[in-house]
Formats: sequence, structure tokens, C-alpha cells
Amino acid sequence: MEKIKIGIVGYGNLGRGTEAAIEQNRDMELVAVFSRRNPEDVHVKNPQVKVLHISDAESYVNDIDVMILCGGSATDLPEQGPEFAKLFNTIDSYDTHAKIPEYYSAVNEAAISGKKTSIISVGWDPGMFSLNRLMGEAILPEGATYTFWGKGLSQGHSDAVRRIEGVKGAVQYTIPIEEAVERVRRGENPELTTREKHLRECYVVAEEGADLGRIEKEIKTMPNYFADYETTVHFISKEELEKNHAKMLHGGFVIRSGKTGEGTNQIVEYSLKLDSNPEFTSSILVAYARAAYRLNALGQIGAKTVFDVPVGLLSPKSPEQLRKELL
Amino acid sequence: MEKIKIGIVGYGNLGRGTEAAIEQNRDMELVAVFSRRNPEDVHVKNPQVKVLHISDAESYVNDIDVMILCGGSATDLPEQGPEFAKLFNTIDSYDTHAKIPEYYSAVNEAAISGKKTSIISVGWDPGMFSLNRLMGEAILPEGATYTFWGKGLSQGHSDAVRRIEGVKGAVQYTIPIEEAVERVRRGENPELTTREKHLRECYVVAEEGADLGRIEKEIKTMPNYFADYETTVHFISKEELEKNHAKMLHGGFVIRSGKTGEGTNQIVEYSLKLDSNPEFTSSILVAYARAAYRLNALGQIGAKTVFDVPVGLLSPKSPEQLRKELL
Repeated sequence: MEKIKIGIVGYGNLGRGTEAAIEQNRDMELVAVFSRRNPEDVHVKNPQVKVLHISDAESYVNDIDVMILCGGSATDLPEQGPEFAKLFNTIDSYDTHAKIPEYYSAVNEAAISGKKTSIISVGWDPGMFSLNRLMGEAILPEGATYTFWGKGLSQGHSDAVRRIEGVKGAVQYTIPIEEAVERVRRGENPELTTREKHLRECYVVAEEGADLGRIEKEIKTMPNYFADYETTVHFISKEELEKNHAKMLHGGFVIRSGKTGEGTNQIVEYSLKLDSNPEFTSSILVAYARAAYRLNALGQIGAKTVFDVPVGLLSPKSPEQLRKELL
Repeated sequence: MEKIKIGIVGYGNLGRGTEAAIEQNRDMELVAVFSRRNPEDVHVKNPQVKVLHISDAESYVNDIDVMILCGGSATDLPEQGPEFAKLFNTIDSYDTHAKIPEYYSAVNEAAISGKKTSIISVGWDPGMFSLNRLMGEAILPEGATYTFWGKGLSQGHSDAVRRIEGVKGAVQYTIPIEEAVERVRRGENPELTTREKHLRECYVVAEEGADLGRIEKEIKTMPNYFADYETTVHFISKEELEKNHAKMLHGGFVIRSGKTGEGTNQIVEYSLKLDSNPEFTSSILVAYARAAYRLNALGQIGAKTVFDVPVGLLSPKSPEQLRKELL
């Protein structure tokens, strides 16, 4: 069997997860990892995989079927997304919700000009959660959709705490409030404020002699990040942080609660409990790389999202096999 | 806006649910209900909807965009599926798993000959559960998939109990065994026998003077239906049966438990808690009717399953709106 040849752009948590995920899929092969760093400083797991500077990518247009872009949404993807979409079929996990329409347009134009297929905003949110929000409201038009995140480590919020003066290290967990979740599961369709849905819990290593009261207050009153939430702050040692808070666990649920008739509540719930957030996201990127390759072979060029992809294209199995084994 | 014109074939629980579901979708309109019964004996909710004999369907080929086939899999659909697929875009809930490949071929041939689009085996299992089984194994190739059903009223098992001599009425509930579910949720990936996954609970109204011991024994030893399960039998009064066991509640969950790296378990769960099994199935049929209409407009003819349908086609919203609001 001819394998689907994959390239990775960016070798952080997501890039490493993508390398591991490709190993689990026998119809795929990782050809090269491209990085902005000096290739000699990038150490991939499989020594047979080439490590190249990102500026060399263009000469691999005939050797790579799908490029998985593992950069971040803030600065990497707005540039790399359209640039690579001209040359390769691509997958990315662009997740700045408010700017998705703009990003979609830029990637779409580039992909069409290169006759390539780019699936954007792939992962679990946006991604799997989006699919479930869409199916929930399409199937149960009269109802409400709830998305809860966690318990999980939020990278953005952890970073925000680390930027406070006197903080040496920190992690932040987002925790769904059990009572709110239970009300939704019971079909009450409550209106929930931000504060009623999630708690924020911080574990902080302070510098010696730092004013703990001030740090705690700065966290709890930080606008956008913490001010609208019930936040708790725990000061711990560096050793404790490294021992107990190194895992990038995450998860959450999408619940659609609808009514189809007199007194008939219908509850649909999709939930994730992840030991590794980046490894799970990478696994989704890899499955969608298979779909991008196939969509392109079918002549479906341009930018796509998870909404545009027939689900069967994610599986290595044939349509006959899927109907027989999984339907 | 031009509405999608729908016809219903068969007016049992599923047909009634479909009528109600169409009412919740403003881009659709129910044109007619076709039945094998004398149309005068079929009473639909909305008096503006025509009720016609099934033999009149053919003259409606220009008035109906999608025909939703609400008959059963045992005898109705094997005949009606291919017959209607020649003339109309169709949706059905064919659920005899073992015969799906054969049914698919027959419908596919008919639909191609009539240039129509037929989505078969739509509902929650097969249907939503199938999608989640597929996505689970495509995203987490190293792992195991578990499907649990219930707590729910099983029509087939209830019928089997009712056929026993001396039984006046009965319902059977399929109940997932909590301990097995918890082991799966913890990521243990256990091998579970039939008996370890589900319990069966029967509520039986016996005829006066019937031998209760014999009825109980006949139930518990019935091959295929009960012999492989832990089964409990409760004898109750006719009044109790009518008061407490009239709801067609059902549900269940599909859990994928996979590993993406050293010690990183990832658990994905899709679960349903339904007050009305037929109304939920109908709601899914109606959302897929929208997709069938659109696929046909795109020239994608032949038989399809939920695996072949881009999820975005289920929603009345435009692709732009979906990207903006739901991604």
C-alpha cells in the first residue's frame, strides 16, 4: 500500500504529539519535520525522519502529501496557514474563534490558487466539540447547547499567572461546576452566568520573600482571565509543582438538551477525559490529514472545516468495511 | 425561502415523531403522509397535511423533495427502500445490522437508476452511535470501543415476553451494568462478556391463575433474548404497567478508550438520555432529510450512510454562519 506522506511544521508539544500519532497509523509515514530553529537543535523521536529548516519546505512539494501545521494561533498560523496552503494540502488547529472567518478566507484563497485542500481549525475545540454543537442543534432544534471545559490545565491562564511579579512558576486549572453540569443533565435548561459554569484553581510557586497577598489579589482581579470567576489560589513548592502538576490533562463536555414533544426531554452529551491535551489534539489532526488527502484526490480544493468533511474519510477502512463493521 | 417538501411513508410511532420533528424545522414542510391503511383511518396531527394511500405516492414525484420511510426493517424497508429510491430522495432507519451491505446494494442501484439520493440506516444506532464508533477508532487507533444501551425499553424483547402463554402485557428494560461502565470510563479496557455488560428487567402482567413460576422460567431461559443475561422478572398489575411503563425511554453510550503515549489514556464518551426513543430517531431522520436534499442538488446520487455526509449539511445554517457561530 502506498502510504500518505506527512510533513510537520513546528516541533513543540503539538508537533511531538503528531509524530507519535503518525506512528499509530499504518497508512501514513512521516517524511520530515520543519522548524524555525536550527535543525541540529531539534531532536525528533524517530532518527529516520529528516529535520529541516522551514525555509526548505518549498522543495518538498512533490514529496509530501499533507503538511500538518503545529504552530500557534497567535502569530504562527496567520502567516504559515495561507503560505503553506498554496503549496501543500494542510491541516491546522487555528483556534482564535473570533478571527476564524478572516483566517478561512485567507487560507481558502491560497489553497484554491495552488489547487490544494486545507482543513482549518481542527482539534477538539474547535473541532470535535464544534461537530457536536452543530449536530445537537440540527437534531434538536428546540433546546439549548452547553459547553463546559475541564477539569483541565489552561495554558493561556497559566501563562497569565506566571507573568505576575514574584511568581516563579504556576499552573491554572479550569473546573466545571458540578451543580451546573447536573442541572443541565437533568434537562432544566438553566441560564448560566460565567461564574456559575466554571471555577479557576491556581497552583503558584512564589519567589522567596514575595508578597503572597498581593499576588493572590492580582490573580483574582485580573480582567478577562479571572475577575469574572470564583478563583482559588494555592501557594506550593517548586518540587510539588513539578511532581503533581506536570501533566497536560484536559477535557470537557458539550451537552444538547432539547424537547421533541410534550414532556419529552432528550439529552445528548459528548465528553472528553484527556490525560494529554496536545496528544489528543494531534491525534485528531492526523485523522483529518487522511481526509484532506482524500478530499484533494476527489478534486475538492480550497479551505474546509470539520463541518465539510464526510466522517468516513477519517478512517483508513474502506466504505464497504465501514458499513459492515461500524454502522 | 423555498421550503424542502417532505413526505412520510408509514404512520406509526416513527411517522408521528417525524411529523412533530418537521414542525420544529422552519425550512421544511410536510406535504403528505402515505400509508398502507385506509387513509380515512389515519389521523395526522396537522389537518392541512394530506393522507394518501401508499399506492398514490408515484404521482407525487414532482411535489416531494425527500420521502422519509418510517416502516420497520423486518418486512417494510427491504421492499419499500429500493422501490421508493427509484422515485424519490429517501431517508430510512434500516437497522438489521447483518443485512446492511445487501440492503445498501439494492437501494444504491435503485437510487442511481432514478438519479436520486438515499441515506440509509439513519437514527441513533445505527446512526449517531456509528459516527462515534468511527471517529473514536480513527482518532485513537490504539484502544477499544464499547457500546452500552439503556436504560431503555426494548421493543423486540418486550414483544418476546408478550408471546409467552399466560402473559397479558409486558415491558422489558435493558440496563447497562454500572460497574462495567465505570471500569471502561477509568480506562481499564476490560474484556466484557454479554452478561457483564447489560441486565434485563421485565415487568409482566400475568393472566389470572397463570403459573408465575413457569412464566419466569420461560423468560429467563429464552435463547438469544434472555438466556445469556442476568434477568429479573417483576409481576405487576395492568394499572401499574399503564401508569409507570408507558414511556418509550431509551439511551446508551459509546465509549472509546485509547492510549496516545506512555501512560496517557484518552477517554471519549457519547451518551444519550432519551425520554422518547422514536421521537429522537425521527428528529435525526429529519435532519438527514435536509442533507439528502442538498447532496442530490450537488449531484451526489446513490445510496449513502451517515459516514458519507458532511456534517454541515445537517444544519439549516449557511457554511459562513456555521464557521462563525459554531466552530
